[in-house]
Amino acid sequence: MANAPFTIGIIQMSMQAAPEANVKRAEELLREAKAKGVQVACLPELFASYYFCQSENHDYFNLAEAIPNGPTYLKMQALAKELGMVIVASLFERRTAGMYHNTAVVFDADGTDLGMYRKMHIPDDPRFYEKFYFTPGDLGFKNFDTKFGRIGVLICWDQWFPEAARLTAMQGASVIFYPTAIGWHPAEKAEYGEEQWNKWQTVMRGHAVANNIFIAAPNRIGLEPETDGGALEFFGHSFICDTSGRYIENVDEKFEGVLTAVINPAKVEKQRQYWPYFRDRRIDAYGKLLQHPDASN
Amino acid sequence: MANAPFTIGIIQMSMQAAPEANVKRAEELLREAKAKGVQVACLPELFASYYFCQSENHDYFNLAEAIPNGPTYLKMQALAKELGMVIVASLFERRTAGMYHNTAVVFDADGTDLGMYRKMHIPDDPRFYEKFYFTPGDLGFKNFDTKFGRIGVLICWDQWFPEAARLTAMQGASVIFYPTAIGWHPAEKAEYGEEQWNKWQTVMRGHAVANNIFIAAPNRIGLEPETDGGALEFFGHSFICDTSGRYIENVDEKFEGVLTAVINPAKVEKQRQYWPYFRDRRIDAYGKLLQHPDASN
Repeated sequence: MANAPFTIGIIQMSMQAAPEANVKRAEELLREAKAKGVQVACLPELFASYYFCQSENHDYFNLAEAIPNGPTYLKMQALAKELGMVIVASLFERRTAGMYHNTAVVFDADGTDLGMYRKMHIPDDPRFYEKFYFTPGDLGFKNFDTKFGRIGVLICWDQWFPEAARLTAMQGASVIFYPTAIGWHPAEKAEYGEEQWNKWQTVMRGHAVANNIFIAAPNRIGLEPETDGGALEFFGHSFICDTSGRYIENVDEKFEGVLTAVINPAKVEKQRQYWPYFRDRRIDAYGKLLQHPDASN
Repeated sequence: MANAPFTIGIIQMSMQAAPEANVKRAEELLREAKAKGVQVACLPELFASYYFCQSENHDYFNLAEAIPNGPTYLKMQALAKELGMVIVASLFERRTAGMYHNTAVVFDADGTDLGMYRKMHIPDDPRFYEKFYFTPGDLGFKNFDTKFGRIGVLICWDQWFPEAARLTAMQGASVIFYPTAIGWHPAEKAEYGEEQWNKWQTVMRGHAVANNIFIAAPNRIGLEPETDGGALEFFGHSFICDTSGRYIENVDEKFEGVLTAVINPAKVEKQRQYWPYFRDRRIDAYGKLLQHPDASN
């Protein structure tokens, strides 16, 4: 498979209420990515709409679409083919009546559907009511062999789980993409805002180090008001870091555009020789990772 | 069990060739810790000697001691009792003829031996020839209920393994201590020095975030020449971070002394309610964590 250096790009953008506007804006930014030489592009989580999980509203199930052949799916597939660029697109998947997933589809550079990853860890927090909308994924942790290189895809809340990064990295990918929608409760921003984006970056930079893997996390930005009067301000701070957790690109909560980095799989493999964690994993002693903790204090 | 706030302290120190000098210096610094109000203290890895794993030399097995009742063991036990302070002491354990471990013993504030942790992940890298000396631990990942609070202990190379941090944190500890001996190859320091201590801190700060746990990592400092003409310069940068991965104390490669922090288990539990990763772990989907990866690229 492909093992030459390749250029990745992640898109940080703000969303509008009308889905068509978001898909159009995503297209503009994907074209910008192409112009910057990007070969593998990733959009933020659920980029086609406002972050509807702010409230539990049955009407929002109407935002979902079938995979394959929903409108956003088809648009992204056509763009991948036209631009000759791999696109990782996060979609609200209607699997069947009454069953929905938070899903990322990987389109190869010729538009081929390489498969999908269904978000495995589903959050539920005030204004992040994802358990109401999404059945947890049933496809496990995956890699995708694109024209340009092997990649892993996880989604947002997955980023807090070292297990997910490990299981993805062990399949050989040189980079994990984390399409994300994370933001501040406006009332908390002043006190906790910096702590929150910092810990969000730190945990993923830790995964980069522990797995000798690049991490690329595109988040959305902007204030999104909800019909119940509440709102979330998405905090941006999208970043790409290398296998040592060092920032290659790192933006604030205002930047709108494309972050890029060159990934060399041969260098990643060399890092895994110099920092050989896979060699020393104690698979005989990890059994309790498959259990929940019991009360012990 | 104890659930009130407690003060931890970690000791960064340089070593000398003579073991007696190191134990004496450790005693001085433990007394300094006590004077600073420390209730739970942790020394660097294998503090009683130079880092002998720089070379594969059978003579160095003579540095090992029995647990219990070796000389360093008895000295640390007596100090814990005298000072009324928990001491985490990293020892070179002679288990039986031809079998040695890299082991940390936890002495409670009355000198009681609360048990030991035997380093589970053993490195082997040029000048870090630990696989020559140490049989990998067979006691699994542990917590220790001290007079002042529940703690976890891992050792050095364990820090690159999120599995170890997770399995330790799931037992309820509010803090993980990582006694460490990590340093620079002098020829690499200029080019890679900052990257190396940065990634060492980053991966542990990631564990702090992913597990809502404090991390306290005492490393040694100083240049240690080996009889083969080589040397390692231990890079210090000992630190304590909170459950968001924020530094509470963070020193350079020159500081010698005690770093302290106050840990409030009630606040740690609250963080675990606000960032409820344990709730959402996909124990049904983590099975491959108990396997090694197969060639896939």
